[in-house]
Amino acid sequence: MSEQRRYAEGAGRSGGPRKAQQIFDATLDLLAEKGYEGLTVEGVAQRSGVNKTTLYRWWPSKGALLGAALTGARQLDLVAPDTGSLRGDLEALMRTMTTLLTAPPAAEIVVATLGAVTHSPELAGLVRDFLADRFAREQPIFDRAKARGELPADADPMLLVDLLAGAVWVRAVLRQLPLDDDFPTRVVATVLNGARTAG
Amino acid sequence: MSEQRRYAEGAGRSGGPRKAQQIFDATLDLLAEKGYEGLTVEGVAQRSGVNKTTLYRWWPSKGALLGAALTGARQLDLVAPDTGSLRGDLEALMRTMTTLLTAPPAAEIVVATLGAVTHSPELAGLVRDFLADRFAREQPIFDRAKARGELPADADPMLLVDLLAGAVWVRAVLRQLPLDDDFPTRVVATVLNGARTAG
Repeated sequence: MSEQRRYAEGAGRSGGPRKAQQIFDATLDLLAEKGYEGLTVEGVAQRSGVNKTTLYRWWPSKGALLGAALTGARQLDLVAPDTGSLRGDLEALMRTMTTLLTAPPAAEIVVATLGAVTHSPELAGLVRDFLADRFAREQPIFDRAKARGELPADADPMLLVDLLAGAVWVRAVLRQLPLDDDFPTRVVATVLNGARTAG
Repeated sequence: MSEQRRYAEGAGRSGGPRKAQQIFDATLDLLAEKGYEGLTVEGVAQRSGVNKTTLYRWWPSKGALLGAALTGARQLDLVAPDTGSLRGDLEALMRTMTTLLTAPPAAEIVVATLGAVTHSPELAGLVRDFLADRFAREQPIFDRAKARGELPADADPMLLVDLLAGAVWVRAVLRQLPLDDDFPTRVVATVLNGARTAG
């Protein structure tokens, strides 16, 4: 996808102004630096160089602005992989998830935001929407896998995504352990082939 | 396990005084009510009816006290299931995890505590210890499964626990969706049998 097209889609998805990407970047940077409590529309206006009244015209609250940034920001962009096989797609998806939850600068933002569901009802709603948006973008992976006969027709895509994303979350965020390079491969192999002794 | 023996182990593990369970309950209740910032050794003393100096003698800080409560409290107790099969053990473990993360009163405490890893370095250390303690208690499930030939000798128990726990965390805490009654069964079936089309 071209830079230009991604930019346009980001702005289109959020219904935002033309400098949407600068605004989203400023929003996420401020969130990472100051937390949700310290995030203000005024601060985003200063950081992005966009007039405060312009921001308020598009997003009536900092919650609405952050919601748009989470789904529209290029630094959190998810382009669903299309490698030709379910295994390849899931390994690529796992690597994207791993990067998102462990590699700076996005990781700090994403982990802080997702972690905040446990203590901010307003952020909890944004996280729910963020994950629903990502799941919608992941859906084609599973549609193609079913069409290719790699997954049974009644397979549950959300369960598979939850297993993959959950393994990264528990290992990296909760246990705070480093992820080996082959962690994505091993997780995908287990989820696709099963852990039990064959036969 | 008898009530008495569990009590004794709880106190023994933490090296705490005889009223350890009342103290741990008071600690977790206050954490759920007031968050980590609002938790104080004085508050626990008042709530549990145990002298403040006694508490400080055993635990020099509120962090140490909470760490002991997380691994020693009866309401968070984990007795690893022993059903005779790996599938039965993992389904029982999944139900325990689901209860812990979704059923009041423990769920509020556990989710708030685990979620706080993302914004409190002190709590992050306690969570790491809490999960390490639980994993040590889960280990026999996998030793027995390998001995029975249900898992290959090189199977990775922590990866399996991360998949199970992670699926609950993502679905219930991050997506904030209700868990169907058969969620544990379906997760365990996927992890043991694999998701891909057989053959």
